[in-house]
Amino acid sequence: MILGPGDDAAILEAPDGRVVVSTDLLIEGRHFRRDWSSGYDIGRKAAAQNLSDIVAMGANPTAIVVGLGLPGEASAEWLDALTDGFRDECALVGATVAGGDIARSDTVVIGVTALGDLGGRTPVTRSGARPGDVVAVAGRLGYAAAGLAYLSAEQRSAEAGSAEIADEFVAAHRRPAPPYACGPEAAGLGATAMLDVSDGLLQDLGHVATASGVRIVLDPGALPVPEAMARLAAELGADPLEWVLTGGDDHALAATFPRDAPLPPSWRVVGQVSVADGEAKAEVSGRAEASGGWDHFRE
Amino acid sequence: MILGPGDDAAILEAPDGRVVVSTDLLIEGRHFRRDWSSGYDIGRKAAAQNLSDIVAMGANPTAIVVGLGLPGEASAEWLDALTDGFRDECALVGATVAGGDIARSDTVVIGVTALGDLGGRTPVTRSGARPGDVVAVAGRLGYAAAGLAYLSAEQRSAEAGSAEIADEFVAAHRRPAPPYACGPEAAGLGATAMLDVSDGLLQDLGHVATASGVRIVLDPGALPVPEAMARLAAELGADPLEWVLTGGDDHALAATFPRDAPLPPSWRVVGQVSVADGEAKAEVSGRAEASGGWDHFRE
Repeated sequence: MILGPGDDAAILEAPDGRVVVSTDLLIEGRHFRRDWSSGYDIGRKAAAQNLSDIVAMGANPTAIVVGLGLPGEASAEWLDALTDGFRDECALVGATVAGGDIARSDTVVIGVTALGDLGGRTPVTRSGARPGDVVAVAGRLGYAAAGLAYLSAEQRSAEAGSAEIADEFVAAHRRPAPPYACGPEAAGLGATAMLDVSDGLLQDLGHVATASGVRIVLDPGALPVPEAMARLAAELGADPLEWVLTGGDDHALAATFPRDAPLPPSWRVVGQVSVADGEAKAEVSGRAEASGGWDHFRE
Repeated sequence: MILGPGDDAAILEAPDGRVVVSTDLLIEGRHFRRDWSSGYDIGRKAAAQNLSDIVAMGANPTAIVVGLGLPGEASAEWLDALTDGFRDECALVGATVAGGDIARSDTVVIGVTALGDLGGRTPVTRSGARPGDVVAVAGRLGYAAAGLAYLSAEQRSAEAGSAEIADEFVAAHRRPAPPYACGPEAAGLGATAMLDVSDGLLQDLGHVATASGVRIVLDPGALPVPEAMARLAAELGADPLEWVLTGGDDHALAATFPRDAPLPPSWRVVGQVSVADGEAKAEVSGRAEASGGWDHFRE
């Protein structure tokens, strides 16, 4: 950072000569609840969501700037915790909080913009997947969705199930753990397409399929459902594979690679890219369109 | 722009190797009203506010990214007009709308982040003013404040005064006209400090005085009150010099220059920089602290 907060604008190093930029707006009650997450957790999550978009291009995040809308009753302690959350999440990737703006608002509104540097790498977009590539995932899938399902069930009933089993998933909902290092790593491994899983694996891979003009077929057997997740799903009467396939907010990375790319253990192959054959889409192998409950998994 | 909207992040040229970034959050009811401004005007104003922060560093804006919170009743036409406003304001400075994010919100929330390139210039911060420098202003002062005063009076009473006289000022409230070219120009002319007048001339120059450790004295005779503004003020029972000294939202630029800097007509000298002498501040010449109504003009 060349010039930090306090002036009209901040000034950052951009040694690559290109700058990567992404912005997201988080609204209280839609993207977070102050009774379900601490200010610190909300800060971590808001920063993570944007930093993850930067690494999904194959870049290293350098900074975030934040626009905050705060109601009058938000305490100074809550604001401090929020900004501590921004700072600590940025520190995980060597980025800084370069500036911000605070306005009065009826509910909490958090606008985060993240910047990044490609370090000479070719950016990895959504449009480069080719028939014959493999599809791989880094990071967690379905954890945040499981945690949110537990919190919602708990709100409806005191008998939501085992809090011990839910702990890990509730924590994942409050504070995602994106596999930051895997983004630039994937670019170095020759990833042909990549994105941050924010709308759910199947829907997001649908975006890759459409942008690349290919078909993506996922192998359900390759999508691991952790035992604790299966137990929590059983208690809640939910389908854990639905969390894995459609849950956002974990900010896993999904990428396509040439078949012979030497993937390290951080990347788990979960499917294949084939010729679109008329309709670019992502689907789950062995699940026909007519099979009812799975229809909404097709994107 | 190397990669535009539609991926996880946008990618922009940053040929200088440094990137300038600024963000602002605009909240409906506090920063704008949909019954007082069209969607197009709100888009123009939201972009202008941030582009102005970039030129105030001496940089050329390259792009904005936008996070939008929209209520369900906002029409597609209104959204189109808003985004047309973003685009057209950016076009004035050769910048583009590189990306964005839309979320559902109870009121309209607009988070704009602007990026810029210094083109090899030294950034002009708030802290470089030196005793002996002159203070100069480019752009309009008090116009938006006059327009807002008229709209507020009109809401209170049908007899707010002459709509014809108010037109120019209401238009200035709805759509500022920042002197974009004057920012990089000032950097080239050797400006020692510069900022975008967003909180009011006196308060913003107070920021320069504090950051630079100097005293800034404004010459009230050098601050022009246009005749139409004086007439509108008389009709509203207001003090036009208060609009000029304390009105934000016109996004004029205020800068300090060495006394011998060859200032073009776009820059109007309005005051002097002197030794802080114990208290760094900005004040209006000839107005003593004890003079009552002017107290709040001291920052």
